[in-house]
Amino acid sequence: MVVHKVTFNHRAEPVVVKSGTLITEAAKLAGIDINQPCGGQGRCGRCVVQVTQGTVRQRSALRLSAEDLSLGYCLACQSVIEGDVSIIVPEQEKIERRLVTDKTAVEVEPPRNYAPEYQQTLKRYFLEFPAPNYEDQTDDLSRLYKQIRLELGFDDVEIPLSLLKKIGLALREGDWKVTVYLDVTYQDGDKPKVRLVDILPDHCEDDSPMWGAAIDIGTTTVTLWLVDLWTGIVHAQVAEYNAQIRRGEDVISRIIYADKEGGLQELQELVVGTINQLLETACKRVKQFSVKPDDILKITVAGNTTMMHLFLGIPPSYIRLAPFIPTFNQAPLLRAKDIGIGANPHAVVDCLPGVASYVGADITAGVLSSGVDNTDLLTLFLDVGTNGEMVLGSKEWLVTCACSAGPAFEGAGVRNGMRATTGAIEEVWIHSETYEPSYRVIGGGKPRGICGSGLISLLAEMFMTGVIDKAGNLNTQLTTQRIREGDHGMEYVVVWGSESGHGEDIVITRVDIDNLLRAKAAIYAGFLVLAQSVGVHLEETDQVLIGGSFGKYLNIEKSIQIGLLPDLPWEKFTFLGNTAVKGAYFALLSQENRERIREIASKMTYIELSADNAFYEAFMSAMFLPHTDIARFPSVMEAIRQAKIPIQT
Amino acid sequence: MVVHKVTFNHRAEPVVVKSGTLITEAAKLAGIDINQPCGGQGRCGRCVVQVTQGTVRQRSALRLSAEDLSLGYCLACQSVIEGDVSIIVPEQEKIERRLVTDKTAVEVEPPRNYAPEYQQTLKRYFLEFPAPNYEDQTDDLSRLYKQIRLELGFDDVEIPLSLLKKIGLALREGDWKVTVYLDVTYQDGDKPKVRLVDILPDHCEDDSPMWGAAIDIGTTTVTLWLVDLWTGIVHAQVAEYNAQIRRGEDVISRIIYADKEGGLQELQELVVGTINQLLETACKRVKQFSVKPDDILKITVAGNTTMMHLFLGIPPSYIRLAPFIPTFNQAPLLRAKDIGIGANPHAVVDCLPGVASYVGADITAGVLSSGVDNTDLLTLFLDVGTNGEMVLGSKEWLVTCACSAGPAFEGAGVRNGMRATTGAIEEVWIHSETYEPSYRVIGGGKPRGICGSGLISLLAEMFMTGVIDKAGNLNTQLTTQRIREGDHGMEYVVVWGSESGHGEDIVITRVDIDNLLRAKAAIYAGFLVLAQSVGVHLEETDQVLIGGSFGKYLNIEKSIQIGLLPDLPWEKFTFLGNTAVKGAYFALLSQENRERIREIASKMTYIELSADNAFYEAFMSAMFLPHTDIARFPSVMEAIRQAKIPIQT
Repeated sequence: MVVHKVTFNHRAEPVVVKSGTLITEAAKLAGIDINQPCGGQGRCGRCVVQVTQGTVRQRSALRLSAEDLSLGYCLACQSVIEGDVSIIVPEQEKIERRLVTDKTAVEVEPPRNYAPEYQQTLKRYFLEFPAPNYEDQTDDLSRLYKQIRLELGFDDVEIPLSLLKKIGLALREGDWKVTVYLDVTYQDGDKPKVRLVDILPDHCEDDSPMWGAAIDIGTTTVTLWLVDLWTGIVHAQVAEYNAQIRRGEDVISRIIYADKEGGLQELQELVVGTINQLLETACKRVKQFSVKPDDILKITVAGNTTMMHLFLGIPPSYIRLAPFIPTFNQAPLLRAKDIGIGANPHAVVDCLPGVASYVGADITAGVLSSGVDNTDLLTLFLDVGTNGEMVLGSKEWLVTCACSAGPAFEGAGVRNGMRATTGAIEEVWIHSETYEPSYRVIGGGKPRGICGSGLISLLAEMFMTGVIDKAGNLNTQLTTQRIREGDHGMEYVVVWGSESGHGEDIVITRVDIDNLLRAKAAIYAGFLVLAQSVGVHLEETDQVLIGGSFGKYLNIEKSIQIGLLPDLPWEKFTFLGNTAVKGAYFALLSQENRERIREIASKMTYIELSADNAFYEAFMSAMFLPHTDIARFPSVMEAIRQAKIPIQT
Repeated sequence: MVVHKVTFNHRAEPVVVKSGTLITEAAKLAGIDINQPCGGQGRCGRCVVQVTQGTVRQRSALRLSAEDLSLGYCLACQSVIEGDVSIIVPEQEKIERRLVTDKTAVEVEPPRNYAPEYQQTLKRYFLEFPAPNYEDQTDDLSRLYKQIRLELGFDDVEIPLSLLKKIGLALREGDWKVTVYLDVTYQDGDKPKVRLVDILPDHCEDDSPMWGAAIDIGTTTVTLWLVDLWTGIVHAQVAEYNAQIRRGEDVISRIIYADKEGGLQELQELVVGTINQLLETACKRVKQFSVKPDDILKITVAGNTTMMHLFLGIPPSYIRLAPFIPTFNQAPLLRAKDIGIGANPHAVVDCLPGVASYVGADITAGVLSSGVDNTDLLTLFLDVGTNGEMVLGSKEWLVTCACSAGPAFEGAGVRNGMRATTGAIEEVWIHSETYEPSYRVIGGGKPRGICGSGLISLLAEMFMTGVIDKAGNLNTQLTTQRIREGDHGMEYVVVWGSESGHGEDIVITRVDIDNLLRAKAAIYAGFLVLAQSVGVHLEETDQVLIGGSFGKYLNIEKSIQIGLLPDLPWEKFTFLGNTAVKGAYFALLSQENRERIREIASKMTYIELSADNAFYEAFMSAMFLPHTDIARFPSVMEAIRQAKIPIQT
């Protein structure tokens, strides 16, 4: 076996690796973590490193200029070590801590008439036993079964090995008085399914809290609500970036990373790590009670299908390969310790059901919490993110689809795009005569890039002021220095380097505009195909419910102007925030809600767009601002008329 | 925190420990394993070490002479470090590898008319699926459930997370044709309980082997049979010392060791390690097929109640505390990976049910395999070991008890006692005039000690030649140098140092004789109490079935002479060898047999002797050779008359 020495950042101790090892792998051995936002596909160019001594073999050098290459720069995820080398890893972009509570905490009231004794599957019972003696030497386990059968009527209780280890001590510490927690679920006609969740010595107070957690695993952000299952009160809401981000920014990149050796396990550990951190943080937030993660006995989890696979450590490979089949939509009920969740090890973990590879439990939970399945109104529900997932329907029927919008609205695939954190431009206005922009920056400081809402706003302003035409071409006839020829074609300068946070110009290029057009076209085409599939007109929609944390920052007017959203009266749009975690919360509280999500998942008709000609046609027609068929956007037509912009037809 | 340096065996590198650490713990840190046959209670004296520099605080120094103490000897399990010290650990007694197959392999034929398709719970099915496409995007798991429901009629299949991880690949590698292994058990009236055990791509041959293992976890020896579940043929029989031996020779020592910090986990890992080694060895023994541990899909386990607790990592503490309550008699069905068993990780592991703390699954399995529950004959079944467990009954009723005979017959608690391995005296004859002994040694070389069968033989010979009287007193009037005053009272020299393997005299002392009397008295008293409890006379017994590997070496005549076994015609005694592993094998083959063991466990009436006055009286009466009531032993009375030994009354 040929091995080589690899020295990182001039350290004294090199690491020794097999010939053919990727630089990213070697770095991991050296304890250096190189971000790979595209999942190690060699596409994003963010894992660039400099080889200062020796050479490496580059399988791909996309995004690197001849000059970069001559200076020894290469992509760490695409370059293999074939000799002794010295490598400099530039300081990695820090994934900033999201200051979450303030931004995402929402007002939640427990459902009216919440009756835990009937609705909650987690039950607490106090049991008192006759102590054993020489005349009654019944073993502890049989004694427990017997008492549960006599007092509660359950004759089949699942007890995991790990709990069996606790029983002997608990019975004796409590002097043959214990509190047991059982998860009891009823299936039609069958005997209830009963699981022992914990056994504690002695008598707990009947109205003391019983802790549960509702979790939404987003591709970007993991959100967790800590709930008292007895009152239904949400005692803490916390969120944090999904630590998987450094291994890919979108689901496809994550799947590709998971296919690498050790990748799946690493991604699972990363997201479980994020969740465990959130459990700790949430517990500390609760002032009224002393609560620790070990007190949490029931967890519901929403998330897209890829996130669910990664969460459980199940290979997601086939999600991205036609015909796009997930291993599961409905996982079996698990225990926290099976997955490494740092709650009570025996806590039941209920992964909510999804519908398809690209319509997951975040959507079914969202439909529940937004009530789409329970209304007479023709409702369009959408969750704008990397994948525009959407549902059209009412209590009669539901159709759903997902369009691979790409991560443009999350700031990826756009030259100066960034996530919606401090330093991101979130709104832009362009003067209709000078073409000079003004903008608002998150956090108020100097701008470092443009986030999704800023990009929508910028695109709409450029269109409404004639900086670009309906096909997205920059108007070179205008008298402004901001429109110029850049390294990669025409571009518009939003911020001069002298005013930016990093000293470089912030621009939007023709390529960026194309990416944004594709993203918005995909989403609008999705709406149209859904409506066509059930024979309704999009304009007949009674209400549009927008979920996802991104939705909150969406400017309706500008979204309509670029043709992202259908041209409906503004009052028909409602932003709901994170509908997924709210759905998980509802499911956490009652079996009826949980059952409703199952019904939602099974009654939704999924339309696969990638095999749909109608979608392709709708997509091509939507590649213009706001749309080829401008008649679909009367309010925009009127605004253009008033703005007196020459629109080419 | 005060710490000290501890140097072992003059090594350069000392280990650093907290003040108050036991020497055994410090040694473990230094990678030195000190045997603790009594479980670290300071009773056996085998963990003696020499402190050559510094001093330690000795909590107990039983078994050490003033001279030993003055030379710095101390018990490693009882001495704590309170300053820097240097310690010499004498070379540890090796626990010899048992050459097992030759000695314990037995002829086993699969039951006549074995019909795996009806009796075997492990089922193999070949499933063929329609491949998914854009019109049918059903997820893999639902597709599998559906096919199982359609083709096999099972509508509720338990699939562990670890198997869920395999499904996607298996379906595609097999091009939507797979072989599934299901464990299907029926409970009266209920739907069958169905567990997915494995899923393999493509079609396995219908009559290829399906591998299973039957295991008996003995306190001393672990025995494993490797079985083709399809034909019922036992393809390999292997056995090995239970690696827990070094942490205690009997169950009580093990329980005490398990109560120490980390002790339980260590003991579990030791026995699981032994089992995993046996699985490897057994697989290699099979010449006809290529089989690896991962092919083993079903395992049944017998063993005494303490062994079962330790095997599952469940604290056995309460087994030894009155009123002697185990945590479980019947464990839930587990999977190999839950316990760390190196078979297929999803293999079902069925721990057979026991009756009480001291009548475990080894006895219920033994009753099954010896057919006690199925005969019209009044049968006495016994398993002679550390605990004499015994069962009296027939197909009508069964009573059972366990008498803490102590480990004397296993060579422990006897000065020159040893296990039945090479160098052990296994049979002794004493000349009735010269009182000179002759003996047979296992392996044929020089003797190093006396094993259980040798001790029984020796005791009987001493009694029948008048070397001892009926109370066990040595007859000092006899003209032989072999009867002498030793360090610990009177003793009889069996082997002079010049003829022994270690150069020292091999003796039996008055103390040893007392221990042996107590052991045999406990067992015989057990028989009597069982018989009394159901109102029969011991003499009415139609047959005596003797299980346990020790049983094979028991000399019936001599066992009757010392009053260990009841005085019945020899032809009524049958040795059955390891009835526990055979019972586990029967349970492995058919659900009916498994169900029979459950019935045996539930129908056996357990008599707790420790709280029984009748037992105490019977025990005291049996403390003589052969018994206070000599009329119970007519054949011995006759032999004594013929031998013309003056028996004091």
